[in-house]
Amino acid sequence: MTSAAPGPNDAPPTRRRPGGRTARIRTQVLDAVRAELGEHGYDGLTMDAVAARAGVHRATVYRRWGDVGGLLADVLDAAGDDDWQPPDTASLTGDLAALNQEIQAALTAEPPVMAALIAASFRSEQADHAQRRLWEDRYARCEVIVDRAVRRGELPPHTDARRLLIAATAPVYHQLVLLRTPPDPHLPGHAARTAALAASAGAFAVPPPAGGG
Amino acid sequence: MTSAAPGPNDAPPTRRRPGGRTARIRTQVLDAVRAELGEHGYDGLTMDAVAARAGVHRATVYRRWGDVGGLLADVLDAAGDDDWQPPDTASLTGDLAALNQEIQAALTAEPPVMAALIAASFRSEQADHAQRRLWEDRYARCEVIVDRAVRRGELPPHTDARRLLIAATAPVYHQLVLLRTPPDPHLPGHAARTAALAASAGAFAVPPPAGGG
Repeated sequence: MTSAAPGPNDAPPTRRRPGGRTARIRTQVLDAVRAELGEHGYDGLTMDAVAARAGVHRATVYRRWGDVGGLLADVLDAAGDDDWQPPDTASLTGDLAALNQEIQAALTAEPPVMAALIAASFRSEQADHAQRRLWEDRYARCEVIVDRAVRRGELPPHTDARRLLIAATAPVYHQLVLLRTPPDPHLPGHAARTAALAASAGAFAVPPPAGGG
Repeated sequence: MTSAAPGPNDAPPTRRRPGGRTARIRTQVLDAVRAELGEHGYDGLTMDAVAARAGVHRATVYRRWGDVGGLLADVLDAAGDDDWQPPDTASLTGDLAALNQEIQAALTAEPPVMAALIAASFRSEQADHAQRRLWEDRYARCEVIVDRAVRRGELPPHTDARRLLIAATAPVYHQLVLLRTPPDPHLPGHAARTAALAASAGAFAVPPPAGGG
């Protein structure tokens, strides 16, 4: 979820694509953006520092990414361009708890790349759009968690997957990103159990589509 | 909740305190901060613009608030310095839904003062601390919602009020502040019902304190 698990910070630090110099430069530059962002945050992120750290000509960085917003957007797009799949633990609560653990780990990782990217999304329109695309992609991939639970008979057939996923994950984001309370090791599991309990009681049931079954 | 209802944007735009010039200047300056923030966001907020708009000497603003961070912190502190009480609708779901409506209204208000304050809290340490104080204050005041529900027999006696309040409100913040999806008019009520359902099923029950009843 989010850039969580195989996100911008941990995970393959941008897959080395088969394919030459262009891909290699991108890898070097995006690695440098993450490193600079983790060390200095948005305010310390400059095109020149990224070029220097990446060992790439400044002119190349300016030509290809334009500005800091372009760099941030590409880091976020690269984070979504992977084969991440949500955890599969054979139970709804287990899947949601494992997902929340990944989110909490990513949000509290050092250096704080994901936190810096979220903060940057309040300042750069390009980062904002890319961050939303990434979240949309992650939540869409997570819908399989709900599909599996329906197939196992844990949930009613017409369950609003997105609403359930938001309810399960929102408390973790809220506490760490907005309220900025210290990480609570029990929260990922608790928020997962709460959402699963409400879901099994039909809280996310939607009426079947007209004419549908 | 938050600066929601009687928050920085709507509500008494800073109570006129009985008490002379100092209080009057504060009112003028904080009104000007909110107006500038609503129009231009953090990036457009300057000490000079605030002083000019407030009709107060620049030197006074610098001496008393120091910098933009000091102005933001004082706006947030002023927002918490009121007599706001959470809604009392005689049911847990009703109270939580009304609370979420207030939060959604504040987060989507025009001009977007609350949204700008939250964004500023990612940039200014003083605003960050003041925003956290405000949230802590609002959540603490909201605990009465849970107390009343326990007294009405809607909830088990040992219910973790804070966790329940976070679960009920987090989806609204998550969608509007982080995911930045368009406001969903059903979400405030739905998130309230979901949390209340989970709560009545014991999801937020805590063991009684040792030796307690």
